[in-house]
Amino acid sequence: MTDTIIIRRATPEDVPQVYTLVRGLAEYVKETHLLKGTEEDLLRDGFGDQPRFRCLVADDGAGTLLGTVIYSANYSTWVGRSTCYIDDFFVSDKARGKGLGRRLMATVAAEALAEGHGRISLTVLDWNPAREAYHNLGFEHEESSLRYTVSGEALSKLAASAG
Amino acid sequence: MTDTIIIRRATPEDVPQVYTLVRGLAEYVKETHLLKGTEEDLLRDGFGDQPRFRCLVADDGAGTLLGTVIYSANYSTWVGRSTCYIDDFFVSDKARGKGLGRRLMATVAAEALAEGHGRISLTVLDWNPAREAYHNLGFEHEESSLRYTVSGEALSKLAASAG
Repeated sequence: MTDTIIIRRATPEDVPQVYTLVRGLAEYVKETHLLKGTEEDLLRDGFGDQPRFRCLVADDGAGTLLGTVIYSANYSTWVGRSTCYIDDFFVSDKARGKGLGRRLMATVAAEALAEGHGRISLTVLDWNPAREAYHNLGFEHEESSLRYTVSGEALSKLAASAG
Repeated sequence: MTDTIIIRRATPEDVPQVYTLVRGLAEYVKETHLLKGTEEDLLRDGFGDQPRFRCLVADDGAGTLLGTVIYSANYSTWVGRSTCYIDDFFVSDKARGKGLGRRLMATVAAEALAEGHGRISLTVLDWNPAREAYHNLGFEHEESSLRYTVSGEALSKLAASAG
């Protein structure tokens, strides 16, 4: 029954199922080879004294998690306020089409507004059909904004190059 | 003299000059109409009890700021660690070509590594010549990653749509 599904904040006990959903997302976007984070990382970084992210889950009311969203704050001088960055957003395939994605994202949006975050941003792969869902939720593609990253050896090399 | 220039953490007293640099960046990327944040926002959000961003400056040793970088932490389940997002990075035109950009970015990278951040990311406009500089610093363009955002009325509408 869809109407028994609740959106709630994740607890440490949810971590195994949340990680399964994160792996589900990695499989969906064909990036399992890039998923270096572990269940232990999630537990340590999200549920310790200083949580580094927040996590909401869609719970079917009987202990099974059907979707999740993982997000954290960052900042935009353009907006002039803190903003919200969504790292992961996933609804398991068996639970799609029931509006769970909207309920999860709307909850993040309400929380973001309540805490003074002026914008929500996320990154999506160009071929991902979820792009249409993001448009339906009100997101816009910033077409001229390109994402650049540095990590691993290149990050160490950069750190050592202050000169 | 280039060698008198120091990279240091910004103080509240630096905010007027930092804001001038932020506005310089907005002019450079032709987005002054999108710059909604004010000097007051910077002071409140970066230098209060719970700073929402960090800011480094390049100081010429005589009180003039020649460049700045503004950044905050977020999280990546793929990396399995917190990461660092750079919101603004700017060196004033009269000070370019002296390696200040590298010194600023290398300082962020060293701090990121020291604090366990596994990656630095940023967004750059497709026509911005700075893309080459980012490549030189070790950044890579994630070509298939598209940026989506929701703000303003669309964000309020999304927040109200939990249903």
